[in-house]
Amino acid sequence: MTDRTMSAAPVPMKWVGPISISGNVMTGLQEVPLATYESPLWPSVGRGAKISTLTERGIVATLVDERMSRSVLFEAEDAGAALAAVRALAEHHDELARVVSEASRYAKLLDVHHQIVGNLLFVRFEISSGDASGHNMVTLASDRLMDHILRTVPGLAYGSVSGNYCSDKKATAVNGILGRGKNVVCELLIPEQVVRRRLHTSPQAIADLNVRKNLIGTMVAGGLRSGNAHYANMLLGFYLATGQDAANIVEGSQGITHAEVRGGDLYFSCTLPNLIVGTVGNGKDLAFVAENLQRLGCIEPREPGENARRLAVLCAATVLCGELSLMAALTNPGELMSAHLTFERKDPR
Amino acid sequence: MTDRTMSAAPVPMKWVGPISISGNVMTGLQEVPLATYESPLWPSVGRGAKISTLTERGIVATLVDERMSRSVLFEAEDAGAALAAVRALAEHHDELARVVSEASRYAKLLDVHHQIVGNLLFVRFEISSGDASGHNMVTLASDRLMDHILRTVPGLAYGSVSGNYCSDKKATAVNGILGRGKNVVCELLIPEQVVRRRLHTSPQAIADLNVRKNLIGTMVAGGLRSGNAHYANMLLGFYLATGQDAANIVEGSQGITHAEVRGGDLYFSCTLPNLIVGTVGNGKDLAFVAENLQRLGCIEPREPGENARRLAVLCAATVLCGELSLMAALTNPGELMSAHLTFERKDPR
Amino acid sequence: MTDRTMSAAPVPMKWVGPISISGNVMTGLQEVPLATYESPLWPSVGRGAKISTLTERGIVATLVDERMSRSVLFEAEDAGAALAAVRALAEHHDELARVVSEASRYAKLLDVHHQIVGNLLFVRFEISSGDASGHNMVTLASDRLMDHILRTVPGLAYGSVSGNYCSDKKATAVNGILGRGKNVVCELLIPEQVVRRRLHTSPQAIADLNVRKNLIGTMVAGGLRSGNAHYANMLLGFYLATGQDAANIVEGSQGITHAEVRGGDLYFSCTLPNLIVGTVGNGKDLAFVAENLQRLGCIEPREPGENARRLAVLCAATVLCGELSLMAALTNPGELMSAHLTFERKDPR
Amino acid sequence: MTDRTMSAAPVPMKWVGPISISGNVMTGLQEVPLATYESPLWPSVGRGAKISTLTERGIVATLVDERMSRSVLFEAEDAGAALAAVRALAEHHDELARVVSEASRYAKLLDVHHQIVGNLLFVRFEISSGDASGHNMVTLASDRLMDHILRTVPGLAYGSVSGNYCSDKKATAVNGILGRGKNVVCELLIPEQVVRRRLHTSPQAIADLNVRKNLIGTMVAGGLRSGNAHYANMLLGFYLATGQDAANIVEGSQGITHAEVRGGDLYFSCTLPNLIVGTVGNGKDLAFVAENLQRLGCIEPREPGENARRLAVLCAATVLCGELSLMAALTNPGELMSAHLTFERKDPR
Repeated sequence: MTDRTMSAAPVPMKWVGPISISGNVMTGLQEVPLATYESPLWPSVGRGAKISTLTERGIVATLVDERMSRSVLFEAEDAGAALAAVRALAEHHDELARVVSEASRYAKLLDVHHQIVGNLLFVRFEISSGDASGHNMVTLASDRLMDHILRTVPGLAYGSVSGNYCSDKKATAVNGILGRGKNVVCELLIPEQVVRRRLHTSPQAIADLNVRKNLIGTMVAGGLRSGNAHYANMLLGFYLATGQDAANIVEGSQGITHAEVRGGDLYFSCTLPNLIVGTVGNGKDLAFVAENLQRLGCIEPREPGENARRLAVLCAATVLCGELSLMAALTNPGELMSAHLTFERKDPR
Repeated sequence: MTDRTMSAAPVPMKWVGPISISGNVMTGLQEVPLATYESPLWPSVGRGAKISTLTERGIVATLVDERMSRSVLFEAEDAGAALAAVRALAEHHDELARVVSEASRYAKLLDVHHQIVGNLLFVRFEISSGDASGHNMVTLASDRLMDHILRTVPGLAYGSVSGNYCSDKKATAVNGILGRGKNVVCELLIPEQVVRRRLHTSPQAIADLNVRKNLIGTMVAGGLRSGNAHYANMLLGFYLATGQDAANIVEGSQGITHAEVRGGDLYFSCTLPNLIVGTVGNGKDLAFVAENLQRLGCIEPREPGENARRLAVLCAATVLCGELSLMAALTNPGELMSAHLTFERKDPR
Repeated sequence: MTDRTMSAAPVPMKWVGPISISGNVMTGLQEVPLATYESPLWPSVGRGAKISTLTERGIVATLVDERMSRSVLFEAEDAGAALAAVRALAEHHDELARVVSEASRYAKLLDVHHQIVGNLLFVRFEISSGDASGHNMVTLASDRLMDHILRTVPGLAYGSVSGNYCSDKKATAVNGILGRGKNVVCELLIPEQVVRRRLHTSPQAIADLNVRKNLIGTMVAGGLRSGNAHYANMLLGFYLATGQDAANIVEGSQGITHAEVRGGDLYFSCTLPNLIVGTVGNGKDLAFVAENLQRLGCIEPREPGENARRLAVLCAATVLCGELSLMAALTNPGELMSAHLTFERKDPR
Repeated sequence: MTDRTMSAAPVPMKWVGPISISGNVMTGLQEVPLATYESPLWPSVGRGAKISTLTERGIVATLVDERMSRSVLFEAEDAGAALAAVRALAEHHDELARVVSEASRYAKLLDVHHQIVGNLLFVRFEISSGDASGHNMVTLASDRLMDHILRTVPGLAYGSVSGNYCSDKKATAVNGILGRGKNVVCELLIPEQVVRRRLHTSPQAIADLNVRKNLIGTMVAGGLRSGNAHYANMLLGFYLATGQDAANIVEGSQGITHAEVRGGDLYFSCTLPNLIVGTVGNGKDLAFVAENLQRLGCIEPREPGENARRLAVLCAATVLCGELSLMAALTNPGELMSAHLTFERKDPR
């Protein structure tokens, strides 16, 4: 039986690349899919991808950390009771870990943090979630952890299974500081001649622009851990094409571009501490998603977590390609607008 | 000729509602489409929509402001030259307005703001953009404004046509303070009995949770103007279904839920200062988008801007529906998880 | 020999109180000194102090945590080298702890956090520092830790002994999330009649104002963990009177007031996660400071840290007194201004 | 009659300099006083001051803007009523300006901004305040404005005379974006040889450290418009010595250091958008304060505002001196700690 109210929003999708990638997760050339209404994104990422193939090591992608988080909220009798509860949780860490493991065989409790505000107690659980992005896994685990804690720790009442100290899909600092999702650093060393011939600019121009726009410009805007030009664009396109919960681009967009001139060449890096991606779970069973993940080499028989890590690295490298391309374009007056005019009209939609 | 590299990512889409809406832009009942991989979103928004129809005025949506922005970056000789330039721009506001109007017949210069950091000058142009979200319009206008300014104001050099004081798709404070996109406030007064019967909770429980989770929880997370539970989810679904640049959910997610008990009933409001939506431009010519906009009543022959304002109000009302439903669910232990388990399995994908 | 260029800025000082305090650090009545140019601060704090004595338990002050931090900055060859260094540090935690303990007999390494941005490695050391606020202790320890690390961990170069991930005297989120200084929660339950007679307002009026001004008002201002009315005023006065480095009011001001109506009475709390105070070190040997600390009961022969904890609790309780008084005043039109006019003229300077 | 409870906290004070200053407010050499418990601050600022005298133009200080602000809070019936009120205020700007001018002959209404959140209306009044920092002036004006508005604009009720959208002494973004206090940019061009001989470092080392520590380091810390090393230290010392309300270092600390290598020399700038200083008002009648202001040349018979502007520029230049000195020290391993050890022991207290 078909649900007649269901249909689909066919977002235009295109594969670009290949991107040359190395680092602690994968090595090789890989094309990537981007689904977006903003057609200039494809040639932009494509240009960055091409650059990556003209360098010695390609984009060196280093996976630094991975975890998914959920913060629950308890109402304590007072701050003293909240503090006593925090201490009880620390003493019974093994018990909490057992509850998490029982919620899912892929879930493992990594760490617990807390905040006390008056009599309110926020407890942030951090788990590893295998190949899943982990939203549901951590919610289920948190549900069970709350039950367990409310039964075993005195002085607490239920507040909420989500207390916003998680933080899911909101512009906060906690995710970058404590970790949420995959933390990936991508670095690319581009010979000066490649910068000049392919990007029509100089290493110094890009490094200077990065300081002025991405660091200082964001700072005067009252920005929060968001020192970049447009990570959100690449993340959206990649997330949609691979069945991710694209609302997580909110925290995903909070990353930092750092560029320097090194011996005349350009060192260009993108640090993405909050990539929330998975190769299993919601959205992954859609036919085109499964096909895309297949083509990305992300549903191979591997140890749990390996496929998701490969996906995260591909995503981060894609972000670097688009970031590099836009930053180069912005160093030249008029280039951004003419690119938009060209590609939006040529786009065969 | 077909581009064989092109395909589409068919994101599952469903219409929910109708929502009952009144206020300074539109009055009536309207269903809305949501494209998402997170199927529990549909019944969640649907529940909120149903509530809206059980109230006297429905969701009262007030459009407070609308503008699109782009900040350009100049390198001045020193801060003195930057200040002189700022004063020159103020004196020649009419000239700048003319340049903007010549860039597009729909564009109108509304305001100009600046920041000086050392010798760097960031100038933020704010324009009205008719029925377009205005990204391209404001970039084109900024391109021309920079040309004009570099020709007429001494002591400045080109820095970048985008200086991140815009701020586009990044977590900053400037958009909420100076404005970017449509600023819409949605309010709903829900009789106590409706809260109890339909949401299985009490007005006081929701008001208390809002303070503890959305206000205090976000605050301890180091949040930036993001006092809500999950605006990003509804925005993503609505943006994808209506051909919007969904990367703008980054700033769109920065809104505030405010709830209070009033005479025993529940006052529930969502303030969304940064809704970046349009009914013309990129993505709007796709067949399904045009059809959706048609069904939403947003491509009627009206004064420029009227269709986009209707779309913004529909979007904001959709956000309120989903926010209300999740907040209610979170007041009850276990409800969120069981809803996810129910709806993700029943979903006919 | 006297340095003739030296003199002193005699900031007007007054003792107010006593405040009634209980909780996990101290119990009793205590007057407190405030040095300030803003004379209305004294009667304001005095009024709050009086209220505390009219309640059952007085201000219940709970010390939640204490630590001092410094982040050093290394330049790594690349992110891979930075990650390898992070892992080496984790494996050699005991060695790092030994280095810290050798730097000062009062210093103890509590925790280590890091951030990797491109090839930059920020390492945040957290130590306990006995009765000292710990600025110098943690800097000395960090100096030695850097030496040790640069000798023993390959792939790193010196960046800076302070990398701003500390963060000292700057508006950031990291201190509230990871901890810096004493974390103290003060709570006061005030009978309705006391609120009405002494503060000329109602519990509901104060609770509502707190949500609207301190939570929502700060949020729209783009505030960062700063949900309060004027913590900075009390902190400055207390810090100056007790020889503290008052520039630390920058992070000290980042705290949250939470108020609710409970059974008709007023629950009023101030959470101050970043109180940086000490009873030994810079400034404490000045005669008037020593005398003030003496009178505060904070240079008694006790276990290391006990005196500083008492000082922190007294400071936090003082903050609550001033916060309560101002919040009450603001609920009544005209009261703030008339208080200023009264007290600034009556002040016998 | 003497108030026997009054005494004073004699904070150690020293004059350092002279600093060489030019720009749009003053030109010349001037010593400055700093009151602080942190004795290493004096030689640190002194070193920077000396550098300023070895350059061609000295510190070029540009006053960019000046205003004082207070936001009031109204409770409207709903967002529609709030919006109607905003429009009424815009239409009656001249009336509001008259009310402000009647509150004080020095007060002039510059601008009005607002935020609507649900039914809450925050209105931010910005005034010029002559030689006063303006706290009381703007509060008095706001009191009268509220009275006037509540009498003349329907649909509003009193909320609070301060709604935290001001924002006074709290870490927010609004002050930097809309302005609060004097906005001063200080720039210094230092010949390479001076950097090497006097600061024992290189222009490149300082420029690189600034990017890594002050921009990126602050960013990862979740910092808010706070790209500097230690503005708060100099601000505290200068504010205490000149009778300012030193709690305003909270917003004062939110400034940005920008440094670059120019033709081999060092361009070093400090941008301080929120200097809240005055030469009249609270604290200025204390004998030592009057003497200090006299010696600073800040109580001369000049046009209203001129003395305060001179004071702001002296303050900002002092900040640059200390910032430059610390940044230079941090480029050399061990220098910061040894400076502390040296100066804290030599200090004749």
